[in-house]
Amino acid sequence: MPLILVTNDDGVTSEGIHALAEAVRPLGEVIVVAPLQEASAIGHALTLRRPLRIETISEGVYGVDGTPTDCVNLACAIILKRVPDLVVSGINKGWNLGDDITYSGTVSGALEGALLGTPGIGVSLKRTPTYDFGPSADAAAKVARAVLKHGIPPRCFLNINVPSGAPKGMRVTTQAKRNHVTKIDARMDPRGNAYYWIEEALDEYHPDSGRTDYEAVKEGYVSVTPLQPDMTAYEVLAPLVEHLK
Amino acid sequence: MPLILVTNDDGVTSEGIHALAEAVRPLGEVIVVAPLQEASAIGHALTLRRPLRIETISEGVYGVDGTPTDCVNLACAIILKRVPDLVVSGINKGWNLGDDITYSGTVSGALEGALLGTPGIGVSLKRTPTYDFGPSADAAAKVARAVLKHGIPPRCFLNINVPSGAPKGMRVTTQAKRNHVTKIDARMDPRGNAYYWIEEALDEYHPDSGRTDYEAVKEGYVSVTPLQPDMTAYEVLAPLVEHLK
Repeated sequence: MPLILVTNDDGVTSEGIHALAEAVRPLGEVIVVAPLQEASAIGHALTLRRPLRIETISEGVYGVDGTPTDCVNLACAIILKRVPDLVVSGINKGWNLGDDITYSGTVSGALEGALLGTPGIGVSLKRTPTYDFGPSADAAAKVARAVLKHGIPPRCFLNINVPSGAPKGMRVTTQAKRNHVTKIDARMDPRGNAYYWIEEALDEYHPDSGRTDYEAVKEGYVSVTPLQPDMTAYEVLAPLVEHLK
Repeated sequence: MPLILVTNDDGVTSEGIHALAEAVRPLGEVIVVAPLQEASAIGHALTLRRPLRIETISEGVYGVDGTPTDCVNLACAIILKRVPDLVVSGINKGWNLGDDITYSGTVSGALEGALLGTPGIGVSLKRTPTYDFGPSADAAAKVARAVLKHGIPPRCFLNINVPSGAPKGMRVTTQAKRNHVTKIDARMDPRGNAYYWIEEALDEYHPDSGRTDYEAVKEGYVSVTPLQPDMTAYEVLAPLVEHLK
């Protein structure tokens, strides 16, 4: 019976995490360890400046006052006392596509699984006024079943993004390149001092190869992107040697 | 005259950032925008749940109550009102090597530069009881000069790690693969409730190709690793298509 750890960045009270836990429950023993507070855009942050607490929410459901990466580590070291057979993270309210995955707590939960030596799967759904987690739960269960049956290479993790409505199918994709545009909303407080909100960045994507995560969801398909943590720009090694001579 | 933005994750009062600013000052106009508080292991986090403030510390030096990624964005949008010609981040007290770069605020400052369309350079020095920033500052200046002269490809950024003492030279490297091991220090508070510190993970590295960042610094060389944000596991695309049929 595989042991499956469920985490997220929207927090332990989010509907999406419980939809995900139910989706993978037929596949193994399920434990939920997630942030007590929403931790969106927290990236792969670890909490090192203060200690962490674990709260038991209900049977098999725990809250941690930290990040998704903290949750995965405390789950393995303290709650489970071993690395699980699979880490699933989500279902996030909002896509994690292209280079934006580097900001994502959802994807980082899956990455942390991979770094600890177990397959990780992140699941994100299009941001809409209301949510139907059904198609995302189905996609997560299908991919999780395949990973538990066939395995994935060491250090690999998967990023699932789901369109709204009934998906046309599932597509294996690459990470889109993104033209990053930051928008800052500058305001004044009642005492006349400036403060700044970081707005959700505008989505400007390069026209890509036709097989990216971004294009798949825009065309109504579930996107499954295999990822790994090596960011070396191999094609730049040789010219850089020349330029540093 | 190139415009150079200097940031870090150790905070605007850290010695390392001012050593870095001095090192690149002969190369252009320098502005420092860095977190007011230390933000180590903050990864690529963005602050979205609360607004941010900018404090003017001194001429050309600003503090932000957020992450390195927040700092780069506020610098471009509000302080400079344009994307600089170079972003340098550091000098961090402690290496950022191998897969650990995904946790690093220092490296994420450089990554954010790359995502915004400008070259980024992260600089990290071996953790020791006392610090001599001289060799790191020299390495940063040498690499920054080469980048401003020759450029680097779009979306590329550089991760510099410096050994303690006098370096034997400079080596262009790849990102090491890391066997991640998390250590948690479990304690009891005076009321008998458990709390947990995340300790610095143990350094267990795969024996690598001989040209990784980890090996370079262990052998006394400055390591310069060219990075880019695409984490697609290209060799897994085809088998994944089969397994999801």
